[in-house]
Amino acid sequence: MLKNDLLLRALAGESLTRPPVWMMRQAGRYLPDFMKLKAKYDFFTRCQTPELATEITVMPIDQIGTDAAILFSDILVIPQAMDIAVEMKDGVGPWLPNPIRAAKDVANVVVPDVTDRLHYVFEAIKQTKKVLDNRVPLIGFAGSPWTILCYAVQGQGSKNFDLAKSFCFSQPEAAHQLLQKITDTTIAYLKQKVAAGVDVVQLFDSWGGMLGEDDYQTFSWQYMQQIIDALKSKTKVIAFAKGCWFALPIMARSGVHALGIDWTCSARNARYLSGGQLTLQGNFDPARLLSPIPEIEKLARKMIDDFGVQNYIANLGHGILPNVPVDHAKAFVNAIKSYNS
Amino acid sequence: MLKNDLLLRALAGESLTRPPVWMMRQAGRYLPDFMKLKAKYDFFTRCQTPELATEITVMPIDQIGTDAAILFSDILVIPQAMDIAVEMKDGVGPWLPNPIRAAKDVANVVVPDVTDRLHYVFEAIKQTKKVLDNRVPLIGFAGSPWTILCYAVQGQGSKNFDLAKSFCFSQPEAAHQLLQKITDTTIAYLKQKVAAGVDVVQLFDSWGGMLGEDDYQTFSWQYMQQIIDALKSKTKVIAFAKGCWFALPIMARSGVHALGIDWTCSARNARYLSGGQLTLQGNFDPARLLSPIPEIEKLARKMIDDFGVQNYIANLGHGILPNVPVDHAKAFVNAIKSYNS
Repeated sequence: MLKNDLLLRALAGESLTRPPVWMMRQAGRYLPDFMKLKAKYDFFTRCQTPELATEITVMPIDQIGTDAAILFSDILVIPQAMDIAVEMKDGVGPWLPNPIRAAKDVANVVVPDVTDRLHYVFEAIKQTKKVLDNRVPLIGFAGSPWTILCYAVQGQGSKNFDLAKSFCFSQPEAAHQLLQKITDTTIAYLKQKVAAGVDVVQLFDSWGGMLGEDDYQTFSWQYMQQIIDALKSKTKVIAFAKGCWFALPIMARSGVHALGIDWTCSARNARYLSGGQLTLQGNFDPARLLSPIPEIEKLARKMIDDFGVQNYIANLGHGILPNVPVDHAKAFVNAIKSYNS
Repeated sequence: MLKNDLLLRALAGESLTRPPVWMMRQAGRYLPDFMKLKAKYDFFTRCQTPELATEITVMPIDQIGTDAAILFSDILVIPQAMDIAVEMKDGVGPWLPNPIRAAKDVANVVVPDVTDRLHYVFEAIKQTKKVLDNRVPLIGFAGSPWTILCYAVQGQGSKNFDLAKSFCFSQPEAAHQLLQKITDTTIAYLKQKVAAGVDVVQLFDSWGGMLGEDDYQTFSWQYMQQIIDALKSKTKVIAFAKGCWFALPIMARSGVHALGIDWTCSARNARYLSGGQLTLQGNFDPARLLSPIPEIEKLARKMIDDFGVQNYIANLGHGILPNVPVDHAKAFVNAIKSYNS
């Protein structure tokens, strides 16, 4: 039995005296101990070595005191397992040397045996669960098929993912074939993650906000819905689609257990658009962690005032920035934990 | 008297049989004749030579047939005139070698005599008006103070403008001093543009969508409002704040003559959030101009169906992309012009 099950209780809609809190990318670059490992091991070594992934995953539990752990990994392990080469380039970030640009490229993409290709992830989950020793729940995650397509086609990060969108708009059949292959792989992957021991899964649609309302349904949401349908009876599912306020009414009716909210969508708008009942997660502006500590504490309390204590998970509205001082991150988490006490 | 005054009539809320159409960044990189000039003259030479700016501004009127011209220039002529160095770097875009990072940097920023420092812009307006010979109205523009601050502090384009936000959140007094200096300069600049002959001005808040609802009011909108207050009795004002759907209710009560809408905010949401009466401009996804031509025509007609013919200016939801074929841009414009005929 979990000693701290606040996250699971918020996802179940139970009545709480304060919301649970965790931070997207909490197992990352703002932590000095993480930087030491980063200096010694390259990105994929850290992902693919269960001992390292476990050590990094547990860091924010020990050092910051969040109410949940999220497995250290990357959304791009999925295209890598599908035989789409992925590298991490200094100063560039993700770099895919053979991007997908035509139907024949899609034909070469495999739907792999995830048990074989991603065994290191499942092993990391098992080791992490042991080290966590039921202190807090463990979250597993995957990127949305659209977000994975963005990288697979564009070949790197982008301000507007113009090549990815161009591919979808000029070769929709090939795009849908690729999205379905990613979806099938992701469903198998997340089922295995649940079998290995994660308590919750979160889907990240980081680039959904690049699409208009109709195109979002066509190229992103229908595949997110397939994943939710396949997982929702097996585990708790959180869906986070950055910039997709316009889709919240449809997302709220999908069967997910919670929706992530970014900082451009106020608590009032998020509650209104999602129908008022569903558990919401977010939405502190990550750059606001660069404010002075008293301001962080004030804004964190205001965030709970605005969302309400019930049906709510305190979090950032996107990943924590690398230049956030550790004591600022702690002040944010502690302001949430001391609410109502 | 203007031969084609559709834009001005849409801004005045008059009844029309089809909406006017123009495209943000229409005087730009998708035009082969522009590329020829680009190969011969660097960026600031093109901006600062009235004959070149005029030639580029008129290109889309002659070659695409839009209902309005927008002066070829750049929002970064303002920081340049304020003694903040701005360069254009190949493969990087805007590059500000001495970014503002502290109060002492703000103290060095001047509010210039725009008549002197930006005379080339006003000369380009006069020459363009002559060449246009009253065929269509001429739009002048400026960046929002927040968007100018983003570049002045970050020093270049960015996915999240973390340094600009960090500056505002950790040194708010210095940030507000800088924003006020930019606002004062922009008001003087736009008044001179109107005196030189522009028929309409548009404010571009390209990076407003990086801010949450409260921070948007604090660091962006209050300065936009000052500019609108100073200009609205002198000319027609269009405000476009990308990603700022959440601010539309306040923007709609500001006295602007129209609001620009990006493609992530549907016509239905935009009409609802802006109160239903105001003239709206937008919102075709620029990447959708990469679709096959019949699809472009269908989506352009649907856009008018959704916004309605009245109180509406057809446009893209952001600047046209450099890789759009000219015949695709023409198909978009012609689909609007043939609506209801």
